[in-house]
Amino acid sequence: MVKAKSWILAKHFVGPPKNADFKLQEEELSKPKDGEVVLEAIFLSVDPYMRPFSQLYMKEGDAMIGTQVAKVIQSKNTAFPVGSHVVSNSGWRSHSVSDGTDLIPIISDWPQDVSLSLALGSIGMPGLTALYGIEEVLGLQKGETLLVNAAAGAVGSVVGQIAKIKGCKVVGSAGSDAKVAYLKELGFDEAFNYKTVSSLEEALRKASPDGYDCFFENVGGVFSSVAVQQMKNFGRIAVCGSISTYNDGTPQTGSYPLITINLKQLKVEGFMQSRWEHKHPESLKRLMAWLKEGKLQYREHVTKGFENMPAAFIGMLQGENIGKAIVAA
Amino acid sequence: MVKAKSWILAKHFVGPPKNADFKLQEEELSKPKDGEVVLEAIFLSVDPYMRPFSQLYMKEGDAMIGTQVAKVIQSKNTAFPVGSHVVSNSGWRSHSVSDGTDLIPIISDWPQDVSLSLALGSIGMPGLTALYGIEEVLGLQKGETLLVNAAAGAVGSVVGQIAKIKGCKVVGSAGSDAKVAYLKELGFDEAFNYKTVSSLEEALRKASPDGYDCFFENVGGVFSSVAVQQMKNFGRIAVCGSISTYNDGTPQTGSYPLITINLKQLKVEGFMQSRWEHKHPESLKRLMAWLKEGKLQYREHVTKGFENMPAAFIGMLQGENIGKAIVAA
Repeated sequence: MVKAKSWILAKHFVGPPKNADFKLQEEELSKPKDGEVVLEAIFLSVDPYMRPFSQLYMKEGDAMIGTQVAKVIQSKNTAFPVGSHVVSNSGWRSHSVSDGTDLIPIISDWPQDVSLSLALGSIGMPGLTALYGIEEVLGLQKGETLLVNAAAGAVGSVVGQIAKIKGCKVVGSAGSDAKVAYLKELGFDEAFNYKTVSSLEEALRKASPDGYDCFFENVGGVFSSVAVQQMKNFGRIAVCGSISTYNDGTPQTGSYPLITINLKQLKVEGFMQSRWEHKHPESLKRLMAWLKEGKLQYREHVTKGFENMPAAFIGMLQGENIGKAIVAA
Repeated sequence: MVKAKSWILAKHFVGPPKNADFKLQEEELSKPKDGEVVLEAIFLSVDPYMRPFSQLYMKEGDAMIGTQVAKVIQSKNTAFPVGSHVVSNSGWRSHSVSDGTDLIPIISDWPQDVSLSLALGSIGMPGLTALYGIEEVLGLQKGETLLVNAAAGAVGSVVGQIAKIKGCKVVGSAGSDAKVAYLKELGFDEAFNYKTVSSLEEALRKASPDGYDCFFENVGGVFSSVAVQQMKNFGRIAVCGSISTYNDGTPQTGSYPLITINLKQLKVEGFMQSRWEHKHPESLKRLMAWLKEGKLQYREHVTKGFENMPAAFIGMLQGENIGKAIVAA
């Protein structure tokens, strides 16, 4: 028998999630039936999307949703032998049973010297999100200027680097001086700390006096209202997230952007990486190739211990992490 | 010598435009030089865009901008003989001189029994706006459900009819019962008076319980905030105008729509018809063909007298018109 721990949404979040909203639960897993495997979590992901998804798709008492890198520890499924690694949708669970349908094997030529945790970051969902946002949504072209916010985060840091690979000027906004220094290391042309600049409007204008062709939007709220004013005509905005508004009880309000969208003929498109699932295998290979060529650098913010998942999640929403926030079980 | 009257922006509008913001000016036009023509306005257009454009592109003392159907009354340009009719960008002027470069001849096969004023409406800029919004921006497909607001206006009434031609379900919102009755006459599947429904949200849901594939946005403000919530996944929004916010001194505010845009993967695109200028001749022919087949009906709200242009403009912004607001000089 395998003992499984899981983190339960005990109470729907009101404002910023707090420890008391979670409950740790234990259960014994039954043995795998034919076709099933038993998984042990190695790395677990905490991501911004979990905050709005909890509100929209979960009820109190559900296990928290999420992906993990897991090791197969028992198997009655030949596709997933014992000892192999997969990315699974098991949620915040230390151990789980799967019939294999929701499992993605780690890509076959994963290098020995690259942590498997990257399958939750630059070579996983956040990396794919960055890639599709740039290529499928923005159609970013060489020579264009791209703005990205939450730029030192799991997605933003990949966005900026792919834009550099494509020969673009990249401006990044982040919430600490350490993050700004990291963006410079990554090769961002301009980077600023939105919390300390005297005027966001001026900071954006100074970073690119001609405005922006493309804007990869992770933050929302006031940032969005200000940035949309500095788009060039026919500018494109990829709406990937809105982290500054996820904790709102009453929704934040701001001036309507429609006149600007109309007169500048902007295109604003929301997206999720799952739309291009058919391209994932090919896309993961491209991301890995960039990583091995040194064009795609990464950092991880690793929290140790499955029991610290709520703390890791809470910290990530507060912007504690540089790069991908990961829990090592 | 030809005496020309023109309406001047005496003072920038603050809130709703009022008569005192305009000044009537008279001047004598000099005789046309080689290549020039003298024009006499027959019909003049008042359009919503003039309100934001005045703020963005005009200074006090400038003549009001706008298009008109004019007759050539003197000509030293063989392309525009005396007696011919053109659409010109002469602004709010009874008479004007042009070198011909900004003139568009009325299409050659204009039927005798169709008023030339339609070259400012359904067979002109508003008709083109409706057509391009549907075909180029929304990519509206047979069987889809389209929402249009300001639906009894110059653009909205054409939008709904083209969507019906394309085999779609059309829901229209307008600001009076008479307008709603007109929308029903035009063949809209559902229409409601947004001023008298107890809840806009409920009215939208009742009109299309499954939500909306496409939304042709003319109004902005609160309407927009509510409607975006009822888009289907992958819905498309064409931002043509934002008339409910044009008169704002301090911008109206509302909740940020980005989470919805993100999770529903919506596409929101602003546009102006001028982007597809190369298609205008072909597009005007298509609109005229629909008109002659009886598939594209129209109404005009005609104000008589050049001296009443400010009143016509003020009234149009207040929603007095059903169909296109026109001034007959």
